[in-house]
Amino acid sequence: MSTESIKYMAEAVKLAKEACQDGEVPVGAVIVRDGKIIATGRNRREKEKNALLHAEIDAINNACKTLGGWRLWNCEIYVTLEPCPMCAGAIINAHIPNVYFGAYDYKNGSCGTVTNLFEMPYSFKPSCTGGIMEEECAKLLKDFFKKLR
Amino acid sequence: MSTESIKYMAEAVKLAKEACQDGEVPVGAVIVRDGKIIATGRNRREKEKNALLHAEIDAINNACKTLGGWRLWNCEIYVTLEPCPMCAGAIINAHIPNVYFGAYDYKNGSCGTVTNLFEMPYSFKPSCTGGIMEEECAKLLKDFFKKLR
Repeated sequence: MSTESIKYMAEAVKLAKEACQDGEVPVGAVIVRDGKIIATGRNRREKEKNALLHAEIDAINNACKTLGGWRLWNCEIYVTLEPCPMCAGAIINAHIPNVYFGAYDYKNGSCGTVTNLFEMPYSFKPSCTGGIMEEECAKLLKDFFKKLR
Repeated sequence: MSTESIKYMAEAVKLAKEACQDGEVPVGAVIVRDGKIIATGRNRREKEKNALLHAEIDAINNACKTLGGWRLWNCEIYVTLEPCPMCAGAIINAHIPNVYFGAYDYKNGSCGTVTNLFEMPYSFKPSCTGGIMEEECAKLLKDFFKKLR
């Protein structure tokens, strides 16, 4: 695991904590290009009352706005939780070549856990590394759900 | 194929034609609840320069706003093209129980063609019927791509 990937995942963790403080499931994401964070995102589903507003979608939305185009070439996305099918599909549609995630998602993870959409014959195949700062990312989620119960 | 499903798919076709006139890949969608169209959507990717703006995402976004919540219970979505992984995932996340699509998508279709996300062990499994007004839906796409070349 490179120090680079830990640096960016730590930024995603900050966003996950921000989501948590706002009563949202703690997931955060950043999109990096040429060594710079060009967009951030975090889960906003409950507050915005919108099924689509996962951290990755929020970040991709912001990156498309920043870059003024729908293809996120030469970008990397760092997200604290393994993408669900919607978010993995959004990453494919945005042509993001590199994906890094923290915790594995045993219920919805679509980058190797429930299925691996990045290995299917779609028009674009991102490469993907999981388990970055896994313990910290998973603990945020565990603590959140423990409090809910 | 019920006359109901043809009635709603015809509305989705109108939206696909609207997308086409706007220079977008012609895909349209409507969301129906209790026999009423509560939200519409169409492809807006190029004009909005946003990878996420497929017809289904546009429609789900509008439905969440209309209903004021992220769970689209008791809803049906009609879309002219088989959902891609992002859109099939969004349908799962929004808990839309019934999906009807027109043309099959041999490149990105994720409701039976490339894969079937609705049969995987995710937290929600929509039921799905494809091939409604298939010929008309497919012809719109074929004509669009023929013009592009």
